[in-house]
Amino acid sequence: MPVFKKEEYQRRIDKTKKSMQEKGIDLLMVSQPANMNYLTGYDGWSFYVHQCLLVSLDQEDPVWIGRGMDGNGAQLTTYLSDDNIIRWPDHYVHSLVHHPMHTVVEEIKKRGWAKKRIGVEMDQFYFTHRAYLELEKGLPEAKFIDANALVNWVRVVKSEAEIDCMKRAGKIAERVMETAVRVIDVGVRECDAAAEIAKAEYAGTTEFAGDYPAIVPLMMAGEATKTPHMTWTEKKYLKDEAVLLELCGTYRHYHCPIARTIFLGKNPPALMNDTAQVVLEGLQAALDYIKPGVTAEGVEEVWRKAIAHSTVVKESRLGYSIGVNYPPDWGEQTISLRPGDKTELQPNMALHLIPGIWFEDVGFEVDASVRVTETGNESLFDFPLRLFTKEAR
Amino acid sequence: MPVFKKEEYQRRIDKTKKSMQEKGIDLLMVSQPANMNYLTGYDGWSFYVHQCLLVSLDQEDPVWIGRGMDGNGAQLTTYLSDDNIIRWPDHYVHSLVHHPMHTVVEEIKKRGWAKKRIGVEMDQFYFTHRAYLELEKGLPEAKFIDANALVNWVRVVKSEAEIDCMKRAGKIAERVMETAVRVIDVGVRECDAAAEIAKAEYAGTTEFAGDYPAIVPLMMAGEATKTPHMTWTEKKYLKDEAVLLELCGTYRHYHCPIARTIFLGKNPPALMNDTAQVVLEGLQAALDYIKPGVTAEGVEEVWRKAIAHSTVVKESRLGYSIGVNYPPDWGEQTISLRPGDKTELQPNMALHLIPGIWFEDVGFEVDASVRVTETGNESLFDFPLRLFTKEAR
Repeated sequence: MPVFKKEEYQRRIDKTKKSMQEKGIDLLMVSQPANMNYLTGYDGWSFYVHQCLLVSLDQEDPVWIGRGMDGNGAQLTTYLSDDNIIRWPDHYVHSLVHHPMHTVVEEIKKRGWAKKRIGVEMDQFYFTHRAYLELEKGLPEAKFIDANALVNWVRVVKSEAEIDCMKRAGKIAERVMETAVRVIDVGVRECDAAAEIAKAEYAGTTEFAGDYPAIVPLMMAGEATKTPHMTWTEKKYLKDEAVLLELCGTYRHYHCPIARTIFLGKNPPALMNDTAQVVLEGLQAALDYIKPGVTAEGVEEVWRKAIAHSTVVKESRLGYSIGVNYPPDWGEQTISLRPGDKTELQPNMALHLIPGIWFEDVGFEVDASVRVTETGNESLFDFPLRLFTKEAR
Repeated sequence: MPVFKKEEYQRRIDKTKKSMQEKGIDLLMVSQPANMNYLTGYDGWSFYVHQCLLVSLDQEDPVWIGRGMDGNGAQLTTYLSDDNIIRWPDHYVHSLVHHPMHTVVEEIKKRGWAKKRIGVEMDQFYFTHRAYLELEKGLPEAKFIDANALVNWVRVVKSEAEIDCMKRAGKIAERVMETAVRVIDVGVRECDAAAEIAKAEYAGTTEFAGDYPAIVPLMMAGEATKTPHMTWTEKKYLKDEAVLLELCGTYRHYHCPIARTIFLGKNPPALMNDTAQVVLEGLQAALDYIKPGVTAEGVEEVWRKAIAHSTVVKESRLGYSIGVNYPPDWGEQTISLRPGDKTELQPNMALHLIPGIWFEDVGFEVDASVRVTETGNESLFDFPLRLFTKEAR
C-alpha cells in the first residue's frame, strides 16, 4: 500500500541514520507529516493531533506512534509491522491531564532509549513547546538535540521514483492553470473560479489522481493584488482587474506549484507590463544559470543582476526547494534562493522560483518549477511564461 | 474589510482580557490562526511561517506581527492601525541565524512589556519549542505562563453574527453532501468524486461564497473504511462497497461538518445495518438531551446508555465544539463530549457529534452539527439522518 517500494524507504532511512550519526543523535523523533510520509509512507489527515516516528540507530524500522483510531491507517499506508505501530488512548486528545507524549515517553523507556541523545524537530509546527516539556519531564536522563530539518535535508535530492511523482504533479499543474485561465473572467465570482481550480487539483488527469496541495488556491484580485497569500471572496471579477494566481498540481503529496498573472482587459497598466517584462527576463536569466555545481545564492545573484537596470526590487527570497509535503507549507524548508545560502545544486534537486512582486497598486506573479538535471535544469510543466491578458466576453 | 463590526472584535478582546486578568496574564501572545482571526479578522494563508498577535492589558488594540510581505494583508483584513502592524524581514524565513521571534522580542521590549507575565499557547501547533526558546532568551525578565486554549475558551459561546455564519456554513454543508451522494457511484474514480465535493465546498451557494474547510474531504472506501482520516485515491468505487464521508460546509472560516455513509448496493451487510440502527438511535438520544445546563459528559453518558444494549462501543469522544477554524483542525479544542468534561452547555455553543465506528470489516459514520438554543438545540443543516444505499446505475 505505500507509494514506493520498501527498498526506497529503507534507503531513505539509511540516509537519515547516517545524518543522525554525523550529528551525534541516537534516536530521532520525527513530527513533521511530510517527514513521516517520506520515511514510511504514512498518510492520513491525522496530523491535527500529536503523532510521530521514532528512528533509532539500534533498530531497523521506525516506530509509528499516533492516536489509537489512526493505527489502522498506519497499517494500511506503511510497511511497518504491527509491533512498530503504537496507539495512544483516545482520552489523551486535548486533555488537561494526559498528553500523547506520555505514550511516546513510555515507548522510549520500554525500548531502552531513555538515556539516549534524542533529536527533536524544535522549530517544526506539529512539535509544540508542551510536547518538548513532556518529553523532558518524562525522560530526565535523555539529552535533547535540535534535529530541525534533518530529514528535510535528506529529502533534498530526489530519487527517480520521486521525480516521476513530481512530473505527474507537473502534468496536473498544467491542467490546473489551464482551468484557471479558462474560467476566470469578468462577471465570474472568485469562489466559482476557486471551485473549478480545486476540482482540477483533486481530479488530476484521466490517467492518475490529483491530491490536495499543502496550500489552497491563492488568487488575489483587484485591491488584494498588493499582497500575497489571500484566497477568494464572493466578489465578481471586474473589467481591467488583475488576478494573481498561485496554484499547484499535486500527486501523492508531491508538489509542483504554478503561478501566473491574468489581466482582465486588453491593456494592462504600463507599470504591470514593464514589471512583467523585467521579471520574466530576470527569471529566464536565473533558469539559464541553474545547473549542478552552482550555488543557491548564485542563482539569486544572477536574477538580481538581470533586473538591476529596472526599478523592480524583490526583498524576499527568489525561491526554495520543493517535493513531498503536507499543509500548511509546500516549501521543503531547506534550500532558499537568497544571499547567504551556499548550497551547491545537485541533479534531482527540485526548485520553485517565484518572483512575486507586490507594489501598492500593481502586483505580478509568475514562476518556474524545475528539476536540476545532469547538465542544467528542466521545467516540471509546459506552460507559457508570460502575462496573460483576457478581454471580457 | 473584516467580516464583523469593530464592536464585535472589541467585545471579543474585552472577554480575552478578562480571562487574562483571571489567570494573572499581562500580555498574551496568540499564535493559533483561528484565534488571530477571531480577535482581529486577520485572514491569509500566511500561517506556514511564524506570526502572532500580542494582546496587552495596557493597550486597547492587539499588535499583529508577521512576515513583511503579509503586512498588506493585515491592513486589508483587520481593523488594526498601521502602528499595530509589525513586519519581520524576509531573510528571517527558515534562517539558521535569524528568527521571527527576534522581532517579537524587540517589539515587546519597545512597548515596555519585557518584565510582564506573558501568556503563550504552549500546546498549539504554530507555536514551536524553538519559538519559546527564543522568547525566553530574549526576555529574561519576563515570566511565561501557559495560556493554551485561553482564546479558544473565549470563542466557545458564539455571537449572533457568528451563528449566522455557521448557519450559512450549514447551507453549504447540505450542498456538499448532496453532491457527494449524487456523484459517488460504482465505476466513478474516488478522485473525481473528491473533485466535485471540493468544488461544492468552495463555490458555496448562489448567495454566498464557500471557504476552504480546515480539513479536506475524508472519504474512506472499501478496505479503508476500517480507519478514519483517509482521503482519496484513483480507484474506482466498486459494487457493494461502503463509503464513509466526513465533509464540511465552511463560510468565512466558520465550519459546519457533515458526515454520512453510503453503501453502493441494495443490501448492506447485516453488521452495517445493525450498527447504523444502533448509532442513529444513540445519536438521537444524545440530541434529545442537549440543552442549556446539561454537561458535556452527560451528553456522552446518554449516548453510551442508549447503545448499551448493543455490541457497539465507541472508545473515542462522541463530539466536540466547533466554530471558526483553520487547517489542520476544525475542532475548537475546548469542549469534548466524553467522561470527565463537566462543561455546562450554554445557548449559542455549537457542537459536532460524530459517532464514527470503525470495525475490522465494516465502518459507519454519521453526525450532527448543532447549535445549543435557549431551550434545546437545532441542527445547522437539514439532511436525512440515515445510512444511504445506492444501487449501481
